[in-house]
Order: sequence, then C-alpha cells, then structure tokens
Amino acid sequence: MWVSPSRTWAFLPCGDSELELLESTEPDGPIARFIEKNGPGIQHIAIRVDDIDKALEELKEKGVRLIDQTPRYGAGGARIAFVHPKATGGVLLELTQRM
Amino acid sequence: MWVSPSRTWAFLPCGDSELELLESTEPDGPIARFIEKNGPGIQHIAIRVDDIDKALEELKEKGVRLIDQTPRYGAGGARIAFVHPKATGGVLLELTQRM
Repeated sequence: MWVSPSRTWAFLPCGDSELELLESTEPDGPIARFIEKNGPGIQHIAIRVDDIDKALEELKEKGVRLIDQTPRYGAGGARIAFVHPKATGGVLLELTQRM
Repeated sequence: MWVSPSRTWAFLPCGDSELELLESTEPDGPIARFIEKNGPGIQHIAIRVDDIDKALEELKEKGVRLIDQTPRYGAGGARIAFVHPKATGGVLLELTQRM
C-alpha cells in the first residue's frame, strides 16, 4: 500500500492482472468525486503497454480523444495516461507502463 | 463472437486476462437493464477459479451474499456464479470456471 496526496491504494494480484483498491484521502480529490457521482464500484480498467509513448502516438493518429496527451507518473512510479471515457463507451481506460 | 437469447458478446485477449464486450439483443434483458440504469460502461469483473463449487462453499461459510447459490452456464460453456454487489462495494463480481 502507498499513500499519495489524494488517495490510498492497494494492488491485489490476480493471475498476471491485478485488482486495484482505491480510497480517497481528501474530500475533493478525483476518487472522492467519482464516488460522489457514481457510488462505490469499478472506476477504471488499466492495460499494461510496453511503450506508452508509442501507444499514445498510435491513439492520437487514430483520432482517439485522450485525457493525458503525455504520460504522467502513477502508483509505484509507473508511467500512466488516461484515454477519455467519451472515446471508450463510458469506460475510463488507463494505459500503464511499468518501469 | 457467440449469440445467446439476450446478448451478443466478444472476448478480447489482454495478457492472460480478457476484456468482454456485451451488447443486448433484447430490450428487457439484464444487459439492456444495466445500460438503462447506469449507461454504457464497465458492467462486471470476472475472476477465474479452479473449482467454483469450492469457491462458493468458502464464500457461503464466510457469510458473503451471493446472487447464484449454485453455478450456472455462461459464455462458451464456462460454469459461472455472481456474488451480490451489496457484498462487494457495488462491484458486480463473477466467478468463472472454464471447463
């Protein structure tokens, strides 16, 4: 378990995938806002990629709407970027490259 | 892609996990009702187990509320059972045993 300014999280291994549990640690953070809007439940799906810069370039070339144009740092120092839910039928999709 | 009375679905391999796409083929089926209530998005998470009868027994012993007390048949002939979302913080959780 790690602690960031806005959330606490834990990864539960499940095969070669993981279930990520998220808890907000501030009333107005992104996780708190998600739960206020949708209630507790599944927040996003993350797909591991080998090269996140290349993956983002491919999505941009295809005109896929992104939240993050360039990668930022996520849990455990992974490089992450979110695709816009408008582009994915309402599913919040994260790309993650573990370093 | 397979067709059942109430839905069309497709499994997209993703590592040793899969993303399952679901489309309702009848206006009052469970998938149609989910989308009417929640909009398009993530419907459930499935965890593969080696022995679904044993897994259900363990959950019952722990007092976990279940939708399916005994397994039924799901996509591709897998034996499946759903845990009640009230027991899992609003997440619809499926156990699946591939035959």
